[in-house]
Amino acid sequence: MADQQTLETWQQRIDVSPFQRWLGLRVTDVDEGRMCIALPWKEELVSNPNPPTVHGGILASVIDLLGLYSVLTTGSVSIATVDLRVDYHRPAGTGDMTAEATIIKLGSKVSTAETKVFDGNGKLLASGRGVYLMAG
Amino acid sequence: MADQQTLETWQQRIDVSPFQRWLGLRVTDVDEGRMCIALPWKEELVSNPNPPTVHGGILASVIDLLGLYSVLTTGSVSIATVDLRVDYHRPAGTGDMTAEATIIKLGSKVSTAETKVFDGNGKLLASGRGVYLMAG
Amino acid sequence: MADQQTLETWQQRIDVSPFQRWLGLRVTDVDEGRMCIALPWKEELVSNPNPPTVHGGILASVIDLLGLYSVLTTGSVSIATVDLRVDYHRPAGTGDMTAEATIIKLGSKVSTAETKVFDGNGKLLASGRGVYLMAG
Amino acid sequence: MADQQTLETWQQRIDVSPFQRWLGLRVTDVDEGRMCIALPWKEELVSNPNPPTVHGGILASVIDLLGLYSVLTTGSVSIATVDLRVDYHRPAGTGDMTAEATIIKLGSKVSTAETKVFDGNGKLLASGRGVYLMAG
Repeated sequence: MADQQTLETWQQRIDVSPFQRWLGLRVTDVDEGRMCIALPWKEELVSNPNPPTVHGGILASVIDLLGLYSVLTTGSVSIATVDLRVDYHRPAGTGDMTAEATIIKLGSKVSTAETKVFDGNGKLLASGRGVYLMAG
Repeated sequence: MADQQTLETWQQRIDVSPFQRWLGLRVTDVDEGRMCIALPWKEELVSNPNPPTVHGGILASVIDLLGLYSVLTTGSVSIATVDLRVDYHRPAGTGDMTAEATIIKLGSKVSTAETKVFDGNGKLLASGRGVYLMAG
Repeated sequence: MADQQTLETWQQRIDVSPFQRWLGLRVTDVDEGRMCIALPWKEELVSNPNPPTVHGGILASVIDLLGLYSVLTTGSVSIATVDLRVDYHRPAGTGDMTAEATIIKLGSKVSTAETKVFDGNGKLLASGRGVYLMAG
Repeated sequence: MADQQTLETWQQRIDVSPFQRWLGLRVTDVDEGRMCIALPWKEELVSNPNPPTVHGGILASVIDLLGLYSVLTTGSVSIATVDLRVDYHRPAGTGDMTAEATIIKLGSKVSTAETKVFDGNGKLLASGRGVYLMAG
């Protein structure tokens, strides 16, 4: 479990992005090659209101960004997402969500990370992979 | 070119979603199997602020939702995105964007649509595909 | 570890396919929701001969088919691959390979499985996911 | 339409690969950023024999390799496939197939190409994209 200082450092890096601040992400754990966040529910995340389900683009956003941050935890520098693939497993209803990203392959040219998004009961809502272009 | 009545009908369907309202999408053209939108720039879309680039999750959101709407223009009903694939081609700077979705294959079980996102000069920023589960 | 009878049953199912026979796959372990195979190297698998590396299409084939069989081990019936995503992590040189598939989500309409392909030293060569259309 | 000399040059490059020779691909047209091939049917391509359908891995192989060659037609050098995405649209029965690849984005770090595979009646069987790592 990461200490409070480490969590705050990564929280600040995530909050550099206006969209990520808007999402309201909270870093809950960080290791080398792994990051976990909490994503609080709010109505503006909703796709179809009857019944309210979280928009697929929100889940895709989390998978894109958390995969990138899991790569950054290694000290490697990535400058861009090459591509993103998202599988939607269940409708995401109201309620806070969590997500965990791990690295599949850390490379010198590109790296691949996998992220899973869960509901409050630990049910898998969506998962997917990003490929990230490495700097240098 | 779709008439004003048709554009307003689809605009209302898109604006049913709180997240899609937040994005500020404007329907600019609709045909059977094809939809075009404008996406106005705003600071909350930004990923990294120096220099400001649009978050990959925003582009993924547009590709997810516009592909779905292009399927809906055929009168077919889709109830969910199965999966989404996004390729990021260039950094998306400040400035309004446009997007166009067309159907690759309309099926009875699943349908596939492709969406391209452009900057104000018509440069391709991102493109990708969604697979949508058909109802019934 | 599956017993010999179970392995032979699944081997026969895999060998129903002429292309899968040509690949020379050998089932090495089976559980509910999981299958492992060995893929012997042969020259006809080669993409570029200097130095010889296994063709990306061969690795994609293994990821497609083994994901499907991992779904079939549950007793569920799938009739087709909806789509396939493959990440190539390292060049696959000469030498026998192994692969393992597990289920990400078993669904009533579609299921998602993930497959990893390794070289003889357990290095990850390629990995990816298939989405499979469920029957009935 | 490419002249005979150009077709033969690209045919020889494709036939450098033992697996591509085994597939029996024939180059039918080449432009800068575009390549077309014919893929003759043979029984060893078959997945399920009743009724015989071409294995998804074969279609994935064609999409992987033809996208790469479409990139090479520009004079740019690519050294590896980063990842591959394939959508399966219809069962591919017996009969020769054709395929066409075009470039979505030629980049300095990575390039993206899209390939479509058709049956003898011009029906779309499968389509997809490869991302290719550029050399230098």
